[in-house]
Formats: sequence, structure tokens, C-alpha cells
Amino acid sequence: MPVLCCPAVDVPEHVITLEETLELAERIHADHDELPLALKLITNTGVQTRHLVQPIETTLRHPGFEERNLVYEREAKARIPAVVERALRQADLTADQIDALIYVSCTGFTMPSLTAWMINNLGFRSDTRQLPIAQLGCAAGGAAINRAHDFCVAHPGSNALIVACEFCSLCYQPDDITVGNLLCNGLFGDAVAAAVVRSEGDRGVLLERNGSRLVPNTEDWIAYAVKATGFHFLLDRRVPGTMEQLAPSLREVAAEQGWNAEALDFYVIHAGGPRILDDLSRFLKVAPDMFACSRATLTQHGNIASAVVLDALRRLYGTESVPVGARGLIAGFGPGITAEITLGTWLG
Amino acid sequence: MPVLCCPAVDVPEHVITLEETLELAERIHADHDELPLALKLITNTGVQTRHLVQPIETTLRHPGFEERNLVYEREAKARIPAVVERALRQADLTADQIDALIYVSCTGFTMPSLTAWMINNLGFRSDTRQLPIAQLGCAAGGAAINRAHDFCVAHPGSNALIVACEFCSLCYQPDDITVGNLLCNGLFGDAVAAAVVRSEGDRGVLLERNGSRLVPNTEDWIAYAVKATGFHFLLDRRVPGTMEQLAPSLREVAAEQGWNAEALDFYVIHAGGPRILDDLSRFLKVAPDMFACSRATLTQHGNIASAVVLDALRRLYGTESVPVGARGLIAGFGPGITAEITLGTWLG
Repeated sequence: MPVLCCPAVDVPEHVITLEETLELAERIHADHDELPLALKLITNTGVQTRHLVQPIETTLRHPGFEERNLVYEREAKARIPAVVERALRQADLTADQIDALIYVSCTGFTMPSLTAWMINNLGFRSDTRQLPIAQLGCAAGGAAINRAHDFCVAHPGSNALIVACEFCSLCYQPDDITVGNLLCNGLFGDAVAAAVVRSEGDRGVLLERNGSRLVPNTEDWIAYAVKATGFHFLLDRRVPGTMEQLAPSLREVAAEQGWNAEALDFYVIHAGGPRILDDLSRFLKVAPDMFACSRATLTQHGNIASAVVLDALRRLYGTESVPVGARGLIAGFGPGITAEITLGTWLG
Repeated sequence: MPVLCCPAVDVPEHVITLEETLELAERIHADHDELPLALKLITNTGVQTRHLVQPIETTLRHPGFEERNLVYEREAKARIPAVVERALRQADLTADQIDALIYVSCTGFTMPSLTAWMINNLGFRSDTRQLPIAQLGCAAGGAAINRAHDFCVAHPGSNALIVACEFCSLCYQPDDITVGNLLCNGLFGDAVAAAVVRSEGDRGVLLERNGSRLVPNTEDWIAYAVKATGFHFLLDRRVPGTMEQLAPSLREVAAEQGWNAEALDFYVIHAGGPRILDDLSRFLKVAPDMFACSRATLTQHGNIASAVVLDALRRLYGTESVPVGARGLIAGFGPGITAEITLGTWLG
């Protein structure tokens, strides 16, 4: 059975703290009626630091969609190689042993996908399958794991590499000033993550089952408005409340495997915001500290979209607290509203 | 083994003929230095009719990226249901028997993908996997077949539905006036196609093997420039010549199956343009009339991007000329430059 190896994650060098974010919000939106609410919501995220691909002064200027997208491509090409190299090393593989490249990113758009560039420049074989996914947002990290799982089952002996490249700061829209937008401006961060799914291996998470769930009729709760200025993020205030509906979905998928979602040994949860973790803990009846790695990702990096689950999983490896044979769940949440769910066993 | 069922295809009601395209080009680009060359290239495509989602007068106006993308979404929602219903009927399945939705489109961008809308509105289950692919361009039709194949192998007993929704006319850019652009303005058409891959079945193409090949260092030969005005299609004049490199790739994938790519019983080839078919016929030493269905798609619909292979396959079903047990190849070509290759046996 396929094994998800320890992810590699890099965050950019331009750091912005919560205090700096609050100061900026106060300065930029001094006249905003709901500024106090926005500041409170940003503070409540618990996000202490975020890492951006450009200095904050540059980030706050919108040079146009075309220029933004060129920055995306330039920064992706500069930052992906080191992360990929580390993910491969952690999986004891070289680039030419990879059979599928799954590239997920919702914060820049290129055609061809950067998978083509990776094949041409990073040593991957020309017969490597390319699977770029741009439209699953934050759920794409989970989807990438699940499609890599499927690929390795369908092609025994194959290995897949996942790359999640999210530069959320390149979707900053100065003219979007609802409270939801202001909150998002203090919530999202940038990161590049990569992880290998090996067809066989003795270290990592043995992938046992995957599943997906859509919360009915919530298509416009997390969405992009596509405009001349690029992607505009729309976040409905009802989103954090969806854990009440998704907790039963997680239980359902676990039950299909004969597992109890309330009593697993580890959890890697998309840290979209603090309430997602709080609510899921409550509705799944799981102690909050079981989500400590997800919480740490949120606190130190912000919501780094599809890279969250890979970063939280990386942290779990770092704790060295998970015993061999432990059963766990990985869940990515994103637009749709979609949950991408993975069940696996810790191999060490 | 998974079976690809007969696709359903719809083309929109607004028809433009070759003569009308030439007249328009002559009128709009009367002062263009290379107009005679452009007219010759358009004529040489052999595209006699194309079908567009809007009248030609509306198509030629660029109302902005935002409006264009809203038109994309509106037209997709209006046109997808009938095609999906037909594809399901042809596979003897209902929507609730589908386990994965693979939605491919490079001519509009939405997040969430229209897979979420399909689940909410067309009777698909909320646990249907969603796989939207926007960045594989014309190769995405082949990629969709191959990923559906993988999914059904990985999840025995499952069924996948492919939807290819391509409104190329919504990427018309009035300010792009290289000869290559003028050619493309007379080459591409609009269409919606859908097809089911069943885990098991006795009618369709039994999927035996899939593979992918990238032509090295051709990333910028077929590409989008992403601008405030939307996606701008870039087509290098060397693209048609890539069949010399891709023919050996097709041979290679066939040989892995113990088949001879030069001596198969049927071929479903992406009809990107006439020279792709001519050259592939030459380099594979296959009689041109073996590509008749692809040629018919090109002639009657133009290059309908990822929908081409599904439309050509639909035509092959219509000919009733393929004997049970016949061996064949499906090949999608697109940006990368990437070939997505499928080998299958005709079940009738």
C-alpha cells in the first residue's frame, strides 16, 4: 500500500507579525466603520507570524493581474526546487524515480502548469504524469494526497510527488474592504510544500482509504470572483460553522474503514482558522491538543491554503510522539465546500 | 478493467463558416501586412464550420475578463446538463452511480470548480470525488480519460464521469494580431463533451494502459499569457512539427503493451490542426483515413480543445466500422508540450 512520506516545507523570508498586521489595518482602514470588529477578528485568528514572498510594502501595491502572475511564476520557480529536493531526500528517492507530479496551487495561474517546467529543469522524466489542480483551493492539499494515493494503487510500483505552492499574498486586493476581506488580509500566508507518496515504504503514513464530501449548497461560501485585477477571495461568515456538517462526514469515512473518527491516534486538520479547529474538536469530541500541529501551523504561518495539511503533517513528524501503528486522519477543507479526507497508519 | 463509454457532445447554435471567418478577417485586419498569409493558413486548416456560444458580433466584443468569465459560467451551466444526461444514458448509469467527476476546461476559470455545482444540481452524490483540471489545455481530454482510468482501477467498482467544457471563443483577444493569433481566431470552436468511464462494462473501449510524454523544452510553445484581459493564447509556429518527436512516444507506450503503434485498428487523435494529423500519419506510417474521425471533428467543429478526442471517439462509434476486439490508441496533445496517451480494446 502507498505511503505518504514526511513533507518538506519552506516559508518565505519576509515576515509580518500580528502586531504589524494590526498596525497596518489601523492605518489603511482608519475610516472603516467596522475596523474594531476586523481587528478583533484578526487578533482572534491567533496567527502570530506570516511569511510573504515580497516585502510588505510591495505586497500592498497591486501592480495588475499580469504582473502579479509573473511574480507568482518567478517566485515559484525560485522556491520550489529546494523544497522538492528535500521532499525527495526524505523519501529516499531521486527525481527520476517519480512517476507522477501533482501540482496544487490556487494563488497563481499558468498554462502550461509548472509541472512542465519541473520536468524540464528538475530532473524528472519526460514520461512523468502531470496533474495540476488550481480550483480546489485549500482542499487541494488533501486532494493531492488522495489522487497520489489513487495513482500509486493504479500503477503498482509507482511514486508520486505532491507540490503545493501557495502565495496568498499575491491575491491581496486593496479595494476589497468588507470585514471578511480585512480578516483574510490578516489570516493568509505564503508557503511551498512538497511530499512524496511512495508505492511502498517503511517510513511515513500508510494510506488506507480516501474520501471526499461536499457540504450541499455552499458553492458561494468560499469562492473566487475572477476579475481584471485577478482572483478576489470571497469568504462567507457561515464558513467556520460548517464543521458541524463535516464532522459526521469524517465519522462516515472512518466508519467505512471500521475506524472511529472520535478515537484516532493522530489528526492532521486544515487550519483554515481557529474556529474550524475549535468546532471540529467539539463536534468530533477530540481533545483540542490533538490538533496541536495544525494549530502551530496557523499560529506561525497563517492559513497557507493547500500547504496547511502538509505543514501540519511535517510538524507531527517533528514531535516524534506518534507510535508505530497509530491510526490517523488527514482532512483538507476548501471551496465547494469540500472536505478531502485521508485515513492512514503511522509507520514511523 | 475500466471501460470508456460512448461520449456525448453538444456544439452551440451560433455557426460561423470558413467563408464568414475569411470575410471577417479581411474586414477586421484589412491593413495587416500578413493578411494574405493569415487567410491562407486559415483556409488550410480545413475547418468548414465552428459553433460558438454567442453570436459572432458579441464574440468579437471584449467586455472584460470578469464579464467573459461570467458568460463562461452561465453558458456552462446552461449547456452541461443535457450532455451529462446523454453521457450517463449511453453508459447505462444514473448520476448517483458516479463516484468521481473529472471536469476539464481551459477557457474559463471558476473556484469552486463547476464540479460543486454539478453535485448540487445534477443529482451526483455529495461524496463524489472532484477533479477539476484547468492547465492541461487540449491535452486535458486525454488526461481526463487517463485519470478516470486510474481512479476506477484504484477504486474497484467505481465509475467516473468526464466533462470537457471548452468555450474557446471566450478567449478571443481583439488586440492580439500576430499571424499565429489570426490563425487561431479561425481555428478554435466551442463544445461541451462528456463521457463515462465504468469500472466494468461490455460496450466501449476497454482501457488497458495509459501514459504521458513531455516534449523537452517546449514549455512556451503553447501557453497562456495571463493578463487583465484574460487568457491570451500563444502558439509557436514550431508546434505542428512536434509530431516527429511525439510519434516515437506513441510507439513507446504501445510497445510497453506489446502493441505496434503503426498497426493498430483505430486511432483517436487530437485534431489540433491539419498538419498534426498529416505529420502523425506520416511519422507513424498510418494511412490518413485512419484519422478520419479526428479530421471530421476538425472540419465540422474546429479545434474544440480538450473536447476533440471525445468528439472524435463519438464519431468512431457512429461509423460502426470497428470490430470487437480491435486495438486502438487515443492521444491528446497540448501545452507542455504534453501528449496524453491511452491504449484500449474495442468492446463494441
